[in-house]
Order: sequence, then C-alpha cells, then structure tokens
Amino acid sequence: MRKSTCLLILALLFMAGMIVGTTSYVWATEEKAAHVTIDQVVSVQKYNRSIHVMAMLMVGFGFLMVFVKKYGRSAVTATYLLVSIAVPMYLYINGKGYLGEPKSDVDGLLLAEFAAASLLICAGAPLGRLKMSQYLLLALLFTPCYMINEWILLESGLGLIPHGGFVDTGGSILIHAFGALFGLGVIMNMTTKEEFAVPVESDHTSDQFSMLGSMVLWLFWPSFCAGLVEPKAVPFTAVNVFMALCGATIATYFVSSTLRGKIAIGDVANAALAGGVGVGATCDTASHQTAFIIGILAGALSTIGFVAIQPVLQNKIKGIDTCGVTNLHGWPGLMGGIAAAFLVPGIVPANQFKGIIIAIILALVTGYVTGQVLAYFGRRRTPYVDEEEFL
Amino acid sequence: MRKSTCLLILALLFMAGMIVGTTSYVWATEEKAAHVTIDQVVSVQKYNRSIHVMAMLMVGFGFLMVFVKKYGRSAVTATYLLVSIAVPMYLYINGKGYLGEPKSDVDGLLLAEFAAASLLICAGAPLGRLKMSQYLLLALLFTPCYMINEWILLESGLGLIPHGGFVDTGGSILIHAFGALFGLGVIMNMTTKEEFAVPVESDHTSDQFSMLGSMVLWLFWPSFCAGLVEPKAVPFTAVNVFMALCGATIATYFVSSTLRGKIAIGDVANAALAGGVGVGATCDTASHQTAFIIGILAGALSTIGFVAIQPVLQNKIKGIDTCGVTNLHGWPGLMGGIAAAFLVPGIVPANQFKGIIIAIILALVTGYVTGQVLAYFGRRRTPYVDEEEFL
Amino acid sequence: MRKSTCLLILALLFMAGMIVGTTSYVWATEEKAAHVTIDQVVSVQKYNRSIHVMAMLMVGFGFLMVFVKKYGRSAVTATYLLVSIAVPMYLYINGKGYLGEPKSDVDGLLLAEFAAASLLICAGAPLGRLKMSQYLLLALLFTPCYMINEWILLESGLGLIPHGGFVDTGGSILIHAFGALFGLGVIMNMTTKEEFAVPVESDHTSDQFSMLGSMVLWLFWPSFCAGLVEPKAVPFTAVNVFMALCGATIATYFVSSTLRGKIAIGDVANAALAGGVGVGATCDTASHQTAFIIGILAGALSTIGFVAIQPVLQNKIKGIDTCGVTNLHGWPGLMGGIAAAFLVPGIVPANQFKGIIIAIILALVTGYVTGQVLAYFGRRRTPYVDEEEFL
Repeated sequence: MRKSTCLLILALLFMAGMIVGTTSYVWATEEKAAHVTIDQVVSVQKYNRSIHVMAMLMVGFGFLMVFVKKYGRSAVTATYLLVSIAVPMYLYINGKGYLGEPKSDVDGLLLAEFAAASLLICAGAPLGRLKMSQYLLLALLFTPCYMINEWILLESGLGLIPHGGFVDTGGSILIHAFGALFGLGVIMNMTTKEEFAVPVESDHTSDQFSMLGSMVLWLFWPSFCAGLVEPKAVPFTAVNVFMALCGATIATYFVSSTLRGKIAIGDVANAALAGGVGVGATCDTASHQTAFIIGILAGALSTIGFVAIQPVLQNKIKGIDTCGVTNLHGWPGLMGGIAAAFLVPGIVPANQFKGIIIAIILALVTGYVTGQVLAYFGRRRTPYVDEEEFL
Repeated sequence: MRKSTCLLILALLFMAGMIVGTTSYVWATEEKAAHVTIDQVVSVQKYNRSIHVMAMLMVGFGFLMVFVKKYGRSAVTATYLLVSIAVPMYLYINGKGYLGEPKSDVDGLLLAEFAAASLLICAGAPLGRLKMSQYLLLALLFTPCYMINEWILLESGLGLIPHGGFVDTGGSILIHAFGALFGLGVIMNMTTKEEFAVPVESDHTSDQFSMLGSMVLWLFWPSFCAGLVEPKAVPFTAVNVFMALCGATIATYFVSSTLRGKIAIGDVANAALAGGVGVGATCDTASHQTAFIIGILAGALSTIGFVAIQPVLQNKIKGIDTCGVTNLHGWPGLMGGIAAAFLVPGIVPANQFKGIIIAIILALVTGYVTGQVLAYFGRRRTPYVDEEEFL
Repeated sequence: MRKSTCLLILALLFMAGMIVGTTSYVWATEEKAAHVTIDQVVSVQKYNRSIHVMAMLMVGFGFLMVFVKKYGRSAVTATYLLVSIAVPMYLYINGKGYLGEPKSDVDGLLLAEFAAASLLICAGAPLGRLKMSQYLLLALLFTPCYMINEWILLESGLGLIPHGGFVDTGGSILIHAFGALFGLGVIMNMTTKEEFAVPVESDHTSDQFSMLGSMVLWLFWPSFCAGLVEPKAVPFTAVNVFMALCGATIATYFVSSTLRGKIAIGDVANAALAGGVGVGATCDTASHQTAFIIGILAGALSTIGFVAIQPVLQNKIKGIDTCGVTNLHGWPGLMGGIAAAFLVPGIVPANQFKGIIIAIILALVTGYVTGQVLAYFGRRRTPYVDEEEFL
C-alpha cells in the first residue's frame, strides 16, 4: 500500500512538472490567413484521420482487451489512462524538441496517437496482472523509450541510420513490433507459476465486445496507415490496407478452423487484423495484389502464432502474454518490416535490417527493465480482478 | 463433411486464381504531382466516406445481426468473411474491366463496399441457417450477380437502359432491394418446416448490440448515400438523409406501439433505418420536406412489414427471413426507386421502371439458383448454433 | 391512457403542421458551379464533423445512459426519438428565420445537432422516470427554449448582448450547462419520495455499454468543439480538446480512487468527459497547457460532484438526477464559461457573465415549467422499467 502511495505521488509530481514545464513553452499555433488555403484543408483531413486513430485506440484496443471477463472495467479504464498519459507526454517532449524537430499540431497529434497505440499493444501482454497505478508507471516509462526508438529509426538519431533510410509508413516495426516486444520484456518479470494454472476466462458477452473492438480497428486501419501520407497517395494506401485485411481475415478463418478443428473467436478477433500490421511498412508502395498476399501470410502467421507458437514461447520465458500481442503485432510486424526491405523501390536493405535489429534490442531491453520496475511495485501470485480496485 | 472440404478447396482455388490473375494486372496508381490539387483533396474526402461506409458494414450490419442470441459469434464472423470476399472480388473484376470501365481506387473502393452492403443485406435472410463455408460460397456467387445488375442498370450493359436513364444515387434498388430480394430467393430453398417451430431467441444484451449496430448504420447513412456525390451536393444530401431517418424513426415508434400495443425493440432497430433505404434514389434531388415525408412513409411501411406482411409472406414461400430484410430493405427500397420516377427532375419514368423490373427479376432468379447451390452443401432441419463451428 | 393518447395526437398534429408548414418553404440548395471550389471542400469537411457529432449523440449519449440496467431499451429508443424530433424541428424553425438568420445546410445541421446534444443531456436527469410519449413532449418543449437562449446569447436576440460579446465556441454554457440546468428544473417536478429508496441498478454488461458510450463521446469531442471553427484553427482546437480530456481522465482516476477508496466506473465513464465540457468556451483560444489544466480541474470538479455534491443537492431539491448531468455538464460547463471571461483575448467579461446568468435563469425556469407539463401527463411513484412499454 505504501508503494502505491509513492507511485501516486510520483505521478502527481510528474504531472505538476509537466504543467510547470510547459509554462515557458509557447505552443505552436496556426498563423492567421485571410483565405482558406489548400494546406489548411489538407491539415483538417489529417485531423480527421487522427480522430479515426483515436477511435482505434479507445474503442478498438480498449474493447479488444475486454475479452477477459473479470477484468473488463480495468481494461477500459487502463485504456483511458494510458492514452491520457502518452498523448500529452509525447506532445510535451516533442514540443520541447528533445528528440528531433517539434512537429505541427496535427502531425504531433498523429505521432502521439501512434505512441499511445504502441503503448496499448504493449499493455496487452501483462493485461490482468497490473494495478491502475502500475499502468500509469508503465505509460511514463514506455513513452520516452518509444520516442528514442522512433528518433533513431526515423530522425537519424545518434547517426545510426540515414534520414529516409528506414521505411515504415504504417508502423509495422516502429509501432507494432516495438510495442509487442516491449510487452514481451515486461512479462518476463510479471508472471508467476501459479498464474499458468489460472486460465483466462471469457464469456459470450465479453467475446462480442472484443469483436466490436476488433472491427473498429479493422475498419479504421487505413486511416492509421495513411495518417501522415500525402493526399495523392491516400486512396491507393487505403485500398492496399483493406486488401491486406481482407486477405488476413480469409486466411484466419481457414487456418483457425483447419488447425483447431473449430474456429476460435479469439483468433478471428485478433488475427484478422494481422494484415494491417503486416502491410504497414509497405502500405503506400506495394501493389494491391502484393498487399493481398502479405495479408494472407500475416493472417496465417498470426493464427499459427496463437495456436502453436504462443504455448511454446510462454513456457520458455515463463510468462503469460494475455492478449497474445506477439502473435498479432510481433511476428506479423517483423514480417512486414522485413518485406519492406525487398519490396520498397529504391530502399537500401541494410538500413532497413539495421533499423529492425535496433528496434528489437531496444524494445526487449527497455521492456525488461520496465518490467523489473513494475514488479517492484507489486508482483502478484494470482491475477487481479476488477473488484480489487473498483467499487 | 466431404462436401464442406470440397467447398474449402473450391474457395482456396478461387483465391489462388484471383492472386495469379491479378499478377498480370497493373493496378491503377495515382500519378505523381508536385502540389496538392483540389481533385486529390476531393478524393481524400471520398476515401473518408468509404471509411464511414466500412463502419456501417462491420459494426452496423455485423452487430444488427447479433440479436440472434445463439448465433452471435457466427454473425460477426460471417460479416468479416463476407466483406473480405466481396470487396477484393469486386475490385478484381472491376479492375479487369469485365463489366464496365475500371474505376479509380477510391471510386472502386466505394462501389465494392456497396456490393458488400448488398451482400450483407442478402445474408440477413438465411442468417442462422448457414455454415461459414456456405457464407463464403454465397459471397462468391452473389458478387458477380450484383455486378451484372449494376452494369445493366448504370452502365447501359446489354443496351437495355440508356446511360443515366436509371437514377439511384443512394442505392434504394441497386443495393437494398436487390440484396433483399436475392435473399428472398435464397431462403425459398433453405428453410424446413421444423424451423418454423423454433423461434429466434434474443436477450437484453443481444438486443443492445443490435441497437448499437442500428445506430451506427443510422448515423453514417449520409456518407453511404453521398459516397460518390460531388462535393457541392454533399451537405444538401446529408440533410435529406437525416430528415428521412428522423421521419422513419418517429413513424416507427407510432406504428409499432399502435399496431402491437407495446414497442418491439426489433422494429425500432430496423424500421428506423428504412428512411435511409427509401430516400436513397432521391437523396440528392428531393427537397428536405419531401425527404422527411419519404422517411415517414418508409418507416411506417417497414414496421407494417415486420408486424403484418412478414408472417403472411413466410407462410407463402415456406421460408424464414431471419432479419426481416424484405421489411427493411425490400419494400422501402422498391418504394424509393418508384418515388424517384416521379420526383427526380428530367427523369424518364419508363427507364426507371424498366430498371426496377430488371433488378427484381434478376435478384429473385439468381437468388433462387444460389439457394439451390447452397442447399446442396447442407440443408438442415434445425437452426445452426455457434457451438457447431466455434470453440 | 387517455392522456397519452392526447399526447400522441398532439405530436402527430405537430408533425403534420410542420410538414404543411415546410411546403411553402423552399429549402436552400447549393448553387451549381462548374468546378469544385475550396469553399465546397470546406463545407464537406464540416459535414464530416457533423457525422462525428451524430456519432456522439447516438452511440455516445445513447449508450452512456444504458448503465441503468432495467431501462436499457428505453434509453436507446428515447435517444433515437429525441434526436429525430430535435434535428428536424431546429432545421424547420431556423429555416423559417424565426430566431436569427437561416443558416446554410451544413451549418444548420451542426447547430441542430448541438440542440439535440443539449436535449439528450437534459433527458439524462429524469432518465428512468419518463414514458416514451413524455420524451416526445420534452423534445417539443425543450428545442424552442434552447433556440431562444442561443438566439439571445449569440445572435443578439432582444438586444441583451452585443454580437460576438458572448464567447462559447464549444458550448460550455449554451449546450452543456443549459441542458443540465434545464434537466434540474424538470426533475424538481418528477421525483417522488419512494424513488429515493429505489437505487439505480447496473451490472457489468450495462457498465461496459456505458463505457463504450463514454469513449465514443471522448474521441469525437474535438469534432464537437471544432464543428463550426474555421479550417486553420481546427488542428489547434483538436489538440486543446484532447489535452483537456486527458487532464480530466487522469484527475478523475486520482480523485475517484482517493475520495471513494476504490474507483467507481461511473465516475470514469462520466467525469473523464468533463474536460471537453470545461474547455468548450475556450477551446480555440486557450494554450494547450491551459487546456490541460482546465481539463484537470473540470475532471476533479465533476468527480467531486458525483461523490459529494449530488447527494446534498438531491436532498435539497427532492429530485433524482439519474445520470448526474449536473456533475458532468452543469458545474464543469459553468466553470468553462466563467474561465472564458478571463482567458479569451479581447473579451468583455461583463457580457460573458450576463450571458451566463441569462442562460442559468432561462434554463431553470423553462425546465421547471416543462417539468410541470410532463408531470401532468404522468408522475409515477416507482421508476419505469422497459417492460411497461416494450415487448
């Protein structure tokens, strides 16, 4: 109890610091113009996609995690808190210019939402074993790590990769694989032997909420991938993303029903989205046909992950990945990042691979350290249930 | 069991064929331009409406069908699969130029979504009596039939109707009536006497999910009707669609509570949407006041359909229309298509009526044949429940 | 029974009158133009925000109210009906030019949706104690009162406040406080002593639906505040609104868990939104940092409202505020309106305060009278349950 009070005060201090910190910072405001310009209109269109991405964060990721029956209120509340920490924190650090150039309002907002997406992916791994205060801490630790990775891969941070050398328009590596592997690092510290004996329970209603979350992610995914894409490439990118999602959905049905005998609704809810994860890095360059094939492979890979890889992996690392984020975001994300090295015109494969390796190492190491810190504030033998923290 | 294995292989073969087929096809990509043009911005706005329509397909139609309690997981999974077959298939056939000129990326996407909408409407009729593999087959058979009808009515296919002679901006006939009547054709083959004795069960939770689906359809409906409308007509069309939906919602309340004594939540979830169906053909030409009246009439007609027409019809055709698609999409769609013959300025009524009659015949005949094929792969005595195919 | 028949006829007469009335009114249509202009594109972007606002009205407010377990079907049906009365009624009265200049299609639509939002807020107070016919009557009485207030504050109606003297871009006072205080007036007439003994029941599923509604409100809130804002200010406003919402969400967690010992999911679902309410009046002028602070204060105030103010208030007025609309929309709305008097550059505080006082008085008085009228058509001793009016 004393530890969580510490955490509370810590978080309050951070918030206070952030507020004071921003006092001296003049937030960028749009200049006044006499007429509406096409650039303003383009910004409003980006803003619109930022709303779609927020729908994915809240209703999408939030409800996809609701499948854990006894942890439904915690899952949605954690979603609220994680987003509410990550977005202002990203905007604040970016506005200060600590890691790369400060962005415009709408670009900053989209990038902040991407950080929040990666954080929510990461939080899916230890889901059901953290208290609210630990989620807050997770958000505070994850966001800077994510930003450092982004800075190295995209902004030539530390001079490791030349500007434009790493290609990942839709975030296969930057967002999905990074979040999943960070989560993998976290759970190495979080799970106990007793938890292996407690299966995750879901019921029909929690499954339906989960499918609702899944569908919201599916349908807004093109806005996620095309968030910062220039207008002329948006329709092409959108068709590519939908092709990949359709491919993954069909593949999931076939692979799940073949491998398991019957369809697991959890496979459908998750692996159908792997197409969007896999096509991320090539969403604005692959042909529609290639996108469809990437989707089929990603969906199949993800389903195989849920059926066959996860049990082996969990035994090896002695940790439970509650939402199976490695299956949905990990392997398909890596696949997508690697695919870009071969598919994107004019790319230097060495840079792409260097970026992927940096992301993997950074995610696992910072994730593992974060897990250690979280475990210090409470490592439990049995899963948390809503009733512990909710009236 | 051997039959469904056949089906699986059949579908895989089709997918493979499609992939190989597209290898030789160069998908249209946007040309490179130095500056952002207003046409690009307009395309992005269409793309945005395509996302809204996808929300209707997934969360809207998907969850509207969840009211069948024991079939919830099947309904949402079927939605995923139907969309994932119909959209790439439409884009593929359209891209090849088999039925009319190939469209641009974003126009093609919207039209493909309309096809998927019509397919989901159709699938609402036999809902609860098909296995997943039969839904796949339904999608493979429905999509080309839909495209032939669209080609004849809009693109002067077979030379039956002159270009621009048939008016149906929001798809009253092309999407709604066609899908509903195709579904009517299907169920003539699918239902057995025993099923009349098994009532469709719903509970409070499944009703709420159904209302969620209904509201999502309601609120995005203007983007459906205005999907391909030129920018200057979008706000006018949007107000018209909302006027019609408001009219239908009010009418549904009065008619449902008057005819039944109490309100049936199923009437509200469905008939409130009939305004959007009915106003489709005239959504960009009717006055706001006329749109309101069309909505009231469509809502009343649809509710009367649920209360009084459906029982008679089902007895006559010896088939069960699970979602009552004839009431929501059939009669109001036909009403809307006929209304256009009198309301659209400069229209030649004969062409409009010719188009309606072609659509009716084509839908019923191809639907009936499709039903025969589906019945060959499994015609059951009792309704399917989730447990048969889901873990 | 006779009374509600009267009501039915009354409403039908109104509808008929409205239809006949509009016959002589030529609804404004967009002029034909050869090329797409940037103004048309800007209108389509406003239209897009109007869809977002409609998502808030339907899925947002509709499902936020579903937490009352035995009143779920009534809540969503009432939402449908309230919107379907308010939107056409607003468009009709505005089109006639009775209260200020008639607006363009898209501006009128957004303003009509704001009126519907205020009405839904108001309806949250007596939720669970009205029959459907009483909701209809509430909508018919509320909408003109709302429009009179809007006309006085924004359009210099009765010459009380100079044009532009009252600042409330996102509707802190005009929409939120007005609706909440109107609802407060209504419930003074509606609640009986017996009802204090019947606690509002919710369960896990109804709580989840409520959180879904909450999240939909949260994520689309920037489109609500920036609905009529000019393009160049949209991204800036969006970031401000999200900053305020993030602040409120974090504050809600800390205050709820501190004051109650455990987190109440109802606090999270509601008070997390108070940031959007509070920042409304200053959403396009405050700095991002100020917006964050406003959000924190609004979230804290709202949570304190739920925990401490509401029980005292309810005892005093002898009425039950089912959804706690005074806590979410009342106090944070007033706070936001007052904050604008100090924060908006160039504002004359006296005008702002005058506007706030007018809104408070008008809302309470017209709300009280409306409550009297509603009570005449049925004041019950025990709460209504769905079964009374639904099959």
